[in-house]
Amino acid sequence: MAQPNHDPMALTGCAGEVLGTYLRTQATAFLRGLRLHEEGGSARTEPGGGADAAESGDAARSLRGAARRISGSLATFRVVTESSWADGLRTELVWLSSTLADEHAYAARLARLMDALHRLSGSAEVPAPRGTAGALTVGSARAGALLERRLTLARTRAHSATLQALGSARFHAVADSVAVLASEVPLDPVAARGRVEDVLVPLAAVAETRLSAAVGALPPAEGTHPYDADRDGPWHEVRRLLRVHRYAREALGEDVTRAAAAGEALDRHRDASEAASASAAAARTPRIAPATAYALGILHADQRHAVESARFDFRRIWLRAPAEGRGHAKITAG
Amino acid sequence: MAQPNHDPMALTGCAGEVLGTYLRTQATAFLRGLRLHEEGGSARTEPGGGADAAESGDAARSLRGAARRISGSLATFRVVTESSWADGLRTELVWLSSTLADEHAYAARLARLMDALHRLSGSAEVPAPRGTAGALTVGSARAGALLERRLTLARTRAHSATLQALGSARFHAVADSVAVLASEVPLDPVAARGRVEDVLVPLAAVAETRLSAAVGALPPAEGTHPYDADRDGPWHEVRRLLRVHRYAREALGEDVTRAAAAGEALDRHRDASEAASASAAAARTPRIAPATAYALGILHADQRHAVESARFDFRRIWLRAPAEGRGHAKITAG
Repeated sequence: MAQPNHDPMALTGCAGEVLGTYLRTQATAFLRGLRLHEEGGSARTEPGGGADAAESGDAARSLRGAARRISGSLATFRVVTESSWADGLRTELVWLSSTLADEHAYAARLARLMDALHRLSGSAEVPAPRGTAGALTVGSARAGALLERRLTLARTRAHSATLQALGSARFHAVADSVAVLASEVPLDPVAARGRVEDVLVPLAAVAETRLSAAVGALPPAEGTHPYDADRDGPWHEVRRLLRVHRYAREALGEDVTRAAAAGEALDRHRDASEAASASAAAARTPRIAPATAYALGILHADQRHAVESARFDFRRIWLRAPAEGRGHAKITAG
Repeated sequence: MAQPNHDPMALTGCAGEVLGTYLRTQATAFLRGLRLHEEGGSARTEPGGGADAAESGDAARSLRGAARRISGSLATFRVVTESSWADGLRTELVWLSSTLADEHAYAARLARLMDALHRLSGSAEVPAPRGTAGALTVGSARAGALLERRLTLARTRAHSATLQALGSARFHAVADSVAVLASEVPLDPVAARGRVEDVLVPLAAVAETRLSAAVGALPPAEGTHPYDADRDGPWHEVRRLLRVHRYAREALGEDVTRAAAAGEALDRHRDASEAASASAAAARTPRIAPATAYALGILHADQRHAVESARFDFRRIWLRAPAEGRGHAKITAG
C-alpha cells in the first residue's frame, strides 16, 4: 500500500504543490513496480513458479495500486490539472490496471474456492467423515478438479493478455506519460495556485458526498436475498467510490485506516461474489455428476453467505452499525 | 403451551402437593388433547385436509406437550413419587410422544424446505431472474418435487404408524395410567411430606446443573465446521436437558420465558439440522439431474447456516453472549 502524503509542510503549500507531490510519489511507485514486474517477467513466461512469481505478484500489485491512485486523484482533482491531459491518462490507467488485475483475480479466486472446498469437506479434526460429509468429499474432489481446470485456463489466457498488453505501443505510451508525471505534473495554472482548503478540500468533499449517496442507496440489511447476485452491483459501485474517496484523503495527508478496513471488507465482498458466480458457472458444465453439482451448490451458497458477511463487516466498520443489525441471521433463522 | 403452576398457595404446601398439582394439571391437559385428537381423527384417516387437520395438529401438539411435561417431571422429581411406577409411565410416555411427533415433523420439514427453496429462487420482486438465479429456479423446481415425494411418503408412513399406535393395547394402557394420574398421583410417603425448598428445589437444581454441564461442554463458536452434522448431537442433548429444566421450573411456578425462548432457538436448530440432512439424503437419489443436485446443495448449505444462526441465537438468549461472538461471521469472512 502506498504511504499517504504525511509531510505536513506540503499541506501548508498551495493546491498544486500538494497534489503534485502526491501524483509524483505515485508515479515513482508506478515506475518502480513496473521495473520489478519486468525483471520478474523476463525470468518466466508462464504463470506460477514459487518465490519469483510471488515477487512478480507484489510488483504487479504495487503497480496496480499506484495506477489506481493516480487515476483516482486525476478524477477527483480534475480541475486542478490540465483536464484534457488528465482525462486521457486516466482512461489509459484504468485500462492498464484492469488488464493487469485479471491474472491475479483468477488465481485468487481458485485459491479461495479450493480453501472453501477444503473447509466444507471437513478438516484434520474429522479423520473419517460419514454421511453428508463423506458425500461432500467425493463431490468436492471432482468439483475442485473442475474449478481448477476452468480457472487455470482463464488465468493462462489472462497471463497471455497481460504479456501482450505490456508489449503493446499503448502500454509504452502510458508508461511514458507516467514517467513525465514523475518529474512534472501538468496543472491548471489558476486552480493550482489556490489554497488547499479552498481547492482540494471541497473537491475531496464532493468525492465523499458521492460515496455517502451510494452507501445510502444500498438495499437495507433486512429482507435481502442472499443468493441474488443481480443485487451485488450497488455494492461494487460503493467499493469503487470508497477507493476514490480514500485516495483523495491520502492525497490530503489524512488518516485512511477506517476507509482501508472498510475497503478490505468490500474487496472480500467482490471476491466472494465472483467466487459464487464461478461456482454457479461450473455447475452449468454439461454432463457433470450429481455429486459434483451438489458440492458446487454448497460452495455457491457458502460464498453467497460470505458475501452477506462482508456486507455486515462493511456496515459495522463504515457505518458503525450495531452487530444486532445483521440481516442474515434474521433471514436464515426465520 | 401449558401454563406454569402460578398458584402461590401451592408453593406454601409440601412437596407432594406442589408436584401433585402440576402432574394432575398436565394429566388433565393430556386427556383433553387426546379427546380432541380422537374427535379430529374419527373424521379423517388421511394426512392433510384444511382446518380439521390444523385442529387435529393442535390437539396432537398439546398431547405431546403434556406427555413431555409429565415424563420430564417424573424424571426430575423421581424420588418424590413411587419410583417404579414413575419409571414405567415415563418410558411409555417417551414412546408415545416420539411416535406422535413423527408425522408432524415430516410435514414441518417439507414446509421448511419448500419455503427455503422459494426464498432461494428469488421472490416476486425479481420477476425475471437471470444467470445463477435462473439456473437455481430450474433445479429448485425439480428439487422441490423430489423432496415432496420423499417427505410425503415418510409422512404417510408416520401417519399410519400413529393410527396403529393409537389403536394399540400399549397406548390404551398409557391412557389409563394418565387417567389415574389426573385424580391421584402415586407419591413416596416420606419425601412427599417434605418442604418444597428441601425436596423439590434441590432436585430442580440437579436438572439445572446437568443442563449447565452440557451447555459448558458445547464446542466453542469459533472454529466450528458449519457443514459437519456429526457435531449436532451435543446441541440436541442440550435441547432435551433444557426442556427437562424448564418443566421442573414450571412445576415450581417459576418464570420460564427465557428458557422457552432459548428452547425455541434449539427447536429451530433441530429443524434446520434435519432439513439439511433431508436435502443431503435427497441428493444421493440415483440418476437425478445435476441442476437438481446443485439446488439441493444450496438448500443443504442454507439449512446448515440456519443451524449456525440458531446456535448463535441460543447463545445470545441463554448465555447472553455478545453478538460479536458470532463464530459464523469469522469463518465465512476468513
